Amino acid sequence: MSKFINLSLLFTLSPLILFAQEAVEASSQITANAFALNNLWIMIAGCMVFIMHLGFASVETGLTSAKSTMSILLKNTMIVCLGTLTYALVGFNLMYPGEFNGFVSFQSVLNFITVSDPEAFLTSAYNPGYTWYTDFFFQAMFAATAATIISGAVAGRIKMTGFLVFSGLFLLFAYPIVGSWKWGGGFLDELGFYDFAGSTIVHSVGGWAALVLATMIGPRPGKYDVDGSVNTIKGSNMPLAVIGVFLLWFGWFGFNGGSVLSANPASVSLVLVTTALAAAAGGFAAGTVAKLAEKKSNLTMTLNGILAGLVGITAGADQMAIWEAVAIGSISGVIVYFASRLIDEKIKIDDPVGAVSVHLVCGIWGTLAVGIFGNLASLNQLYLQFQGVLAVGIFTVVFSLIVGFAINAVFGLRADKSQLMVGDDIFEHHDTAYPEFTAADKAAIIKAAAFFKN
Amino acid sequence: MSKFINLSLLFTLSPLILFAQEAVEASSQITANAFALNNLWIMIAGCMVFIMHLGFASVETGLTSAKSTMSILLKNTMIVCLGTLTYALVGFNLMYPGEFNGFVSFQSVLNFITVSDPEAFLTSAYNPGYTWYTDFFFQAMFAATAATIISGAVAGRIKMTGFLVFSGLFLLFAYPIVGSWKWGGGFLDELGFYDFAGSTIVHSVGGWAALVLATMIGPRPGKYDVDGSVNTIKGSNMPLAVIGVFLLWFGWFGFNGGSVLSANPASVSLVLVTTALAAAAGGFAAGTVAKLAEKKSNLTMTLNGILAGLVGITAGADQMAIWEAVAIGSISGVIVYFASRLIDEKIKIDDPVGAVSVHLVCGIWGTLAVGIFGNLASLNQLYLQFQGVLAVGIFTVVFSLIVGFAINAVFGLRADKSQLMVGDDIFEHHDTAYPEFTAADKAAIIKAAAFFKN
Amino acid sequence: MSKFINLSLLFTLSPLILFAQEAVEASSQITANAFALNNLWIMIAGCMVFIMHLGFASVETGLTSAKSTMSILLKNTMIVCLGTLTYALVGFNLMYPGEFNGFVSFQSVLNFITVSDPEAFLTSAYNPGYTWYTDFFFQAMFAATAATIISGAVAGRIKMTGFLVFSGLFLLFAYPIVGSWKWGGGFLDELGFYDFAGSTIVHSVGGWAALVLATMIGPRPGKYDVDGSVNTIKGSNMPLAVIGVFLLWFGWFGFNGGSVLSANPASVSLVLVTTALAAAAGGFAAGTVAKLAEKKSNLTMTLNGILAGLVGITAGADQMAIWEAVAIGSISGVIVYFASRLIDEKIKIDDPVGAVSVHLVCGIWGTLAVGIFGNLASLNQLYLQFQGVLAVGIFTVVFSLIVGFAINAVFGLRADKSQLMVGDDIFEHHDTAYPEFTAADKAAIIKAAAFFKN
Repeated sequence: MSKFINLSLLFTLSPLILFAQEAVEASSQITANAFALNNLWIMIAGCMVFIMHLGFASVETGLTSAKSTMSILLKNTMIVCLGTLTYALVGFNLMYPGEFNGFVSFQSVLNFITVSDPEAFLTSAYNPGYTWYTDFFFQAMFAATAATIISGAVAGRIKMTGFLVFSGLFLLFAYPIVGSWKWGGGFLDELGFYDFAGSTIVHSVGGWAALVLATMIGPRPGKYDVDGSVNTIKGSNMPLAVIGVFLLWFGWFGFNGGSVLSANPASVSLVLVTTALAAAAGGFAAGTVAKLAEKKSNLTMTLNGILAGLVGITAGADQMAIWEAVAIGSISGVIVYFASRLIDEKIKIDDPVGAVSVHLVCGIWGTLAVGIFGNLASLNQLYLQFQGVLAVGIFTVVFSLIVGFAINAVFGLRADKSQLMVGDDIFEHHDTAYPEFTAADKAAIIKAAAFFKN
Repeated sequence: MSKFINLSLLFTLSPLILFAQEAVEASSQITANAFALNNLWIMIAGCMVFIMHLGFASVETGLTSAKSTMSILLKNTMIVCLGTLTYALVGFNLMYPGEFNGFVSFQSVLNFITVSDPEAFLTSAYNPGYTWYTDFFFQAMFAATAATIISGAVAGRIKMTGFLVFSGLFLLFAYPIVGSWKWGGGFLDELGFYDFAGSTIVHSVGGWAALVLATMIGPRPGKYDVDGSVNTIKGSNMPLAVIGVFLLWFGWFGFNGGSVLSANPASVSLVLVTTALAAAAGGFAAGTVAKLAEKKSNLTMTLNGILAGLVGITAGADQMAIWEAVAIGSISGVIVYFASRLIDEKIKIDDPVGAVSVHLVCGIWGTLAVGIFGNLASLNQLYLQFQGVLAVGIFTVVFSLIVGFAINAVFGLRADKSQLMVGDDIFEHHDTAYPEFTAADKAAIIKAAAFFKN
Repeated sequence: MSKFINLSLLFTLSPLILFAQEAVEASSQITANAFALNNLWIMIAGCMVFIMHLGFASVETGLTSAKSTMSILLKNTMIVCLGTLTYALVGFNLMYPGEFNGFVSFQSVLNFITVSDPEAFLTSAYNPGYTWYTDFFFQAMFAATAATIISGAVAGRIKMTGFLVFSGLFLLFAYPIVGSWKWGGGFLDELGFYDFAGSTIVHSVGGWAALVLATMIGPRPGKYDVDGSVNTIKGSNMPLAVIGVFLLWFGWFGFNGGSVLSANPASVSLVLVTTALAAAAGGFAAGTVAKLAEKKSNLTMTLNGILAGLVGITAGADQMAIWEAVAIGSISGVIVYFASRLIDEKIKIDDPVGAVSVHLVCGIWGTLAVGIFGNLASLNQLYLQFQGVLAVGIFTVVFSLIVGFAINAVFGLRADKSQLMVGDDIFEHHDTAYPEFTAADKAAIIKAAAFFKN
């Protein structure tokens, strides 16, 4: 090769080498942008799931008597605190055992020491959708959700200490163990069970525990008469219930939308649409059924219809066409109406806010619906879904029974007579939530405060 | 050409071919990142617009009597459900007729079959800012907004069924038809009429319908005495009104910011700033005018001033400089004060929450302001804006009158005497929203429930 | 060089030139994507900080008597309006003097004329994280936060006009001047003082002013008896207090997360996790300490524990490991409990919502904690932190004293006897916030309205 050809090659290749460097840099910056975008959505979705806790607190407070308001508010506030802390301590590690999870647990400290490059947990090497911290943040908000479902079902006649100990154990063990079966890559996942954002893994787990505890502690005083007649104990603050349901609906866009685990435009936007339509259909269906059946408007049922539609779509929000989302939501709305009346009037379990009908019954329905509607529909999938529902149900019921009885023996679960007589708030807080509105309470507060003061 | 030159060429070209492939991939990934980012913002903006419905429900409930609370809450809840479902069925398709829209309508099913590549609707080929699903999601939230404006103006004396039928027809036809004129590329758009995020297309449409219905059904009992004197019917829950206004303000950042239809940093951030400043100026101006005119603080007017500023800036939020946003907002605040008093005290139309003053009067003002302030200001533009206001006004008034009279004939619109006497909630729900706070109601509820039970 | 070599070179170079152009375009698009993403997060974070104002309004209203509800709501609404407007007029420019800031101030108009390329303020040339508008939007929301802290501490016995004038001057001068010392690159920044998101720069500034004003105007009537005994004036609406705290917590994710000033995945997600865990630990610690000390549940303390944890982590949210966030939050929870009791029972400053304990005491603690825990921990840093706390404290106290005394002389600060007797709302608004719930007020309203009507 002649000399000038060499020169010519050098001349043409040198910019190529520069381009190669630039291309590598550009490519890594493109990946970094995509990662930052995905991570941003999961973080924001986590914030939206967080606000669901205010939704739960508001719904439960709005639909129950004012004499238990402070008690419910404290329970739901404490559960968010407990849920976040226990998930850092144990839950994260227990639920995703194959990874470097758990923040302050022994296992995670051990992992941290043995892992060669912890910085990798903060890049797309950990996951193309989120950092290790974002993963924890999003998942921790889910854990607290499952636990907070219980508090509505037991409102008005549970002991604070017993409830908080149960919630702590539920958060430490029940939720992460069940979660590990599917989302941690456990046996339900290997089986082919599908639960996109947690109709079963989150909602029915909370729902089963709610059913067990509500049954164990019995009804509120005055709910069922000795002659078998059923009394309605009215919600004390309906705007608060509406605030709660709308915040839950809002947060559910993050709950389901974030469960895509990336900001993939097609997937997330489909999930938002199926979520919105299922909720709308559920509210419309439940409201209409109630109006036809009772010949009067029923706000509570309309609200629970929205929640039912949301729980129902959660298992398959990414698998449904538009009309299927509407169908699943509508059926959820009808189911929640009849389930509520059945549980309240026939089975006679006192569930002040309808948590069992919404989260358990519609959680089961939504999970099975994945085998009936959408991309995965098949008899085989339906059978797999049924197996998942059953496995989770059996575990959670057994867990709740054992832990429930143990706590009942040690701390007590059902409120004693003095608490039931004066109300949770005066008994536990020596106070009421609306001291200037419920004038009749004033004398009772003073009397009770004097009585319980040690 | 000699052989070694050929080799040299091959040597230099082969990496070029690789680079070309990589460059194409990189370029498509860059576009995908931009698309995902734009789409994410429109989805989040849609969620923020969603929460405006809780804002409307809260404002309207807070500013009206407690005896209509459940009724308003049910109406506003139902409208979100209805609005989302009807927009999927008809509205989306009717409003954007040239595209593949409408989710479950006959037309859209037809389109889906005939379209060769429906996947294209989930990429930037559909729109560089959002997927087909995101488009629907964002637009559906707008539709429900327009309809929910009406419910405040007719609170306290409308029949539930008549109202819901009117809202359904309004959502099915009035809102999407008017919307198609501008945002669907119709004659107002071709004319040069400008309405960035809907001072006219959303707010005045709702406002005109509110005006027609409020006039048709007449005032609440006790509002105007036979001697012509005007009574104030106080809001029952002022913190709820504040919650509502702040949620509306928050949601408006999505309403206006999302209307950029991309995450373009300069455009969206300008819109957030003009929106924030117009709202602040509106609240400050209305609060100050009220204080000067009435020699006392006026919380309701301050709150409506904020909403007025928001409605006022909406038509030109992307066209205004800072001082212009402050000017438009301030003038909105002054307008809403005097419009409210004029409508309430002189024209004597009973509008319990001031919906007509806020959404119609300031919607018109904001639309005209695009011809007075900002980049588009010109006498010609002012005339175009005026034409748009007029066209939308005539259509909506005629639509509302025809549909209103038809519904009045079939279902009835104004509540009958028994409903007005016992209140909406006891009549429609056999219940009250705050049974433990409004002690006097207890006897009335029992009596009424017995009376209305069939 | 022979002719065909020339051709060969041309042949190989021409695509290189095309690639070079494309590479430049691709590179600028990659930068634009990153900029748009960062800017999007700061905008959304700004919206989240905005909703904190509803949080403050709700907490303060919920924790105070219903007879001051409208007054508090109006104050907090006005402060958001005032805060945004004054920050545009003066604050932005004063706080970041080196840049092209301030929207309508004389200085900024001057700057705008002399700056050669104002468009540069809308690109990453201004800042890689945000546009000029986004910068203003995010910072303006912070300014209003600092001012709104004060309103809780002076609830129930301050004159509306005096308060609003104080807030206006505080917003115009105190907040931006202190802010300029650190975030504007002033002497505290040069010194090495660290305050990530404003434990000192935002929260303690508000807290010092709250302390000064609460002391100056004295306690609410009935708070302290002549015999020295302390009375608890109960919160009127506890669900509202919970709504407030949860909204503050939600907004704080934007407050701290946005203070990263970009969407950097590792940094923002760490900040969200430390923020969540500190809040959870604070709530749990304060709730537990209160339960142990008082032998009853204490919802208010649990709520203030959450806020204390949030204030405490704010100065070092990006510097702490997980366990350090939990430690800082727990200590904040313990501190706020004892500080509240000390201030209320021993020092006898009437602070109806505990604003001083939460924002001042825990603001100081959080600032000092940066020298004790985390990446910056050192005795030297602790000393620097102490200097920052001291400088800010001295300035704000002196400012508040001077301005407070001046306003007291001109407008008066403490409510006069008639206002204290009938309550803020009847005095200032001739109205009450819940006219149908607090039946006893009805007669008082009519009487007072007649009395104060001029």
